[in-house]
Amino acid sequence: MSRFDVLCIGNAIVDIIARCDEAFLVDNSIIKGAMNLIDADRAELLYSRMGPAIEASGGSAGNTAAGVASFGSRSAYFGKVSADQLGKIFSHDIRALGVHFDTKPLEGTPPTARSMIFVTPDGERSMNTYLGACVELGPEDIEADVVADAKITYFEGYLWDPPRAKDAIRQCAEIAHKNGREMAMTLSDPFCVGRYRDEFLDLMRSGTIDIVFANADEAKSLYETDNFEHAIAQLRKDCKIAAITRSEHGSVIIRGDERVDIDAIDIDEVVDTTGAGDLYAAGFLHGYANGKPLDVCGKLGSLAAGLVIQQIGPRPLLSLKDAAEKSKLG
Amino acid sequence: MSRFDVLCIGNAIVDIIARCDEAFLVDNSIIKGAMNLIDADRAELLYSRMGPAIEASGGSAGNTAAGVASFGSRSAYFGKVSADQLGKIFSHDIRALGVHFDTKPLEGTPPTARSMIFVTPDGERSMNTYLGACVELGPEDIEADVVADAKITYFEGYLWDPPRAKDAIRQCAEIAHKNGREMAMTLSDPFCVGRYRDEFLDLMRSGTIDIVFANADEAKSLYETDNFEHAIAQLRKDCKIAAITRSEHGSVIIRGDERVDIDAIDIDEVVDTTGAGDLYAAGFLHGYANGKPLDVCGKLGSLAAGLVIQQIGPRPLLSLKDAAEKSKLG
Repeated sequence: MSRFDVLCIGNAIVDIIARCDEAFLVDNSIIKGAMNLIDADRAELLYSRMGPAIEASGGSAGNTAAGVASFGSRSAYFGKVSADQLGKIFSHDIRALGVHFDTKPLEGTPPTARSMIFVTPDGERSMNTYLGACVELGPEDIEADVVADAKITYFEGYLWDPPRAKDAIRQCAEIAHKNGREMAMTLSDPFCVGRYRDEFLDLMRSGTIDIVFANADEAKSLYETDNFEHAIAQLRKDCKIAAITRSEHGSVIIRGDERVDIDAIDIDEVVDTTGAGDLYAAGFLHGYANGKPLDVCGKLGSLAAGLVIQQIGPRPLLSLKDAAEKSKLG
Repeated sequence: MSRFDVLCIGNAIVDIIARCDEAFLVDNSIIKGAMNLIDADRAELLYSRMGPAIEASGGSAGNTAAGVASFGSRSAYFGKVSADQLGKIFSHDIRALGVHFDTKPLEGTPPTARSMIFVTPDGERSMNTYLGACVELGPEDIEADVVADAKITYFEGYLWDPPRAKDAIRQCAEIAHKNGREMAMTLSDPFCVGRYRDEFLDLMRSGTIDIVFANADEAKSLYETDNFEHAIAQLRKDCKIAAITRSEHGSVIIRGDERVDIDAIDIDEVVDTTGAGDLYAAGFLHGYANGKPLDVCGKLGSLAAGLVIQQIGPRPLLSLKDAAEKSKLG
């Protein structure tokens, strides 16, 4: 028995989303397609140059928790907001989906994290994240009973950026494994992998995590190779299950000697790629927690990712449960 | 000479937008299609029942100011936010369009106004507005030089809800007319007309305002008639110009003995009607301030309104200048 299918842990962020042209990224030294970490001063500067925007709750693992709940699975989330207006918005949006979210908000500064997301005409998103209150997430924020009661605890590699979240994750892994649960992570971003390559490899090789999500760039960055198949071969040795997304080429799932190739769904127009990887993980984890075979897990991931990139914002505006039923994956 | 084409004055509001079904409106006693004024307690209650939402700067006259700027006209705005995160978002979004916005934010409580907007499957929006800092807008917020330098000063009837904004408007009218400028207003909402019918009629009949915007329901509410043509006949007597929108039936513009009927543009799908009237006014005022004939003013209004209802959120995400050029109205 378990109270939760999936517990997600990550940086709790409100997205500020606007369109821009390619030149804007160049002029402002924003690495396209990446998560650019910024400080408060640069956040002010970039915001002053940003066009009119809309706001939506985001955060990689937050989006995954929302997706898992939207599929109808029981989902929980740990992440640190501040007790401010953006923090209230984040808390509202995730709880409104039925996600258990009870991390104590930070009183006072720094404020709730925000990511300024610039979407270019090709639909690619370039993120500029000010971590704010996220830097305060630590072991004291772990609800041990929730970890013990979740089939899978999933976290984002981005958590290696704030100082103490990694301690919280290690504590979670201990609780989870002691209770016969599984740990999963996403490698998050190729530059994030560059910052923490050895630690991520150690998490995998030490068995701290069981399931790894990555996109092709992150997988190649992890093994410092430009050969995708080489990265896949290494992942096969280093973790129990790996699910590697490849944008329009779908995804590859490996488990021991098994390999499953999954197609991407048909897309009318890529509006905004924000949340694609997060929602792939949501679909996969929803399937996995409910005992589905790997190919169904992958198809659920493809479905959710394909839907979220055809809208603005990182969390699907429609019910993923309905979408799964329509696709006969429900 | 003039520094501004259009100055807009209104309640400065951040919209919180979510979809809901028809039953939700009934269960929560929300009047469909209307602006429901709510207090802080009801705002908390409704938010706790609201699904996951997105946030976007709104406010009726704020949307009009944004639309005027998006058409390429020179636009200014007066409205009161608080010095909080939502206030910063509102200020950013309107300034990012090049709108002059310099109203001093309120320090401390109440916080920036927000409107919880529920969009039903038919695309109709039902607004629930907590006025927050807007109640503090008063004559001290009038930048007399801006009023004197704007071809048209436009304000929303909603400004009769907060206590002192009406004094600010009367002061503006005096400055504007002394400088040979014109005053325009929107009747805002049929229930708002019900609250201030006599005062609105007096504004028109005393010549305090020159141009009136309304939709058919508001016009009929003003004269307590269910006969649209009767309302039109009365408006003809009571103001110099009236532009009356009729949803999918387009709009009617009257000036003295003149009458111009304008078609609505073709719509693929009504996604969210929020901002339709505000953007009609934006298109009309952009045309009018630039000396276009009434039929072109009306067509510009139809264009902007038609575009904004095919997206989520109250301000067009694309350039209205480009749209006008494409429609050969530029």
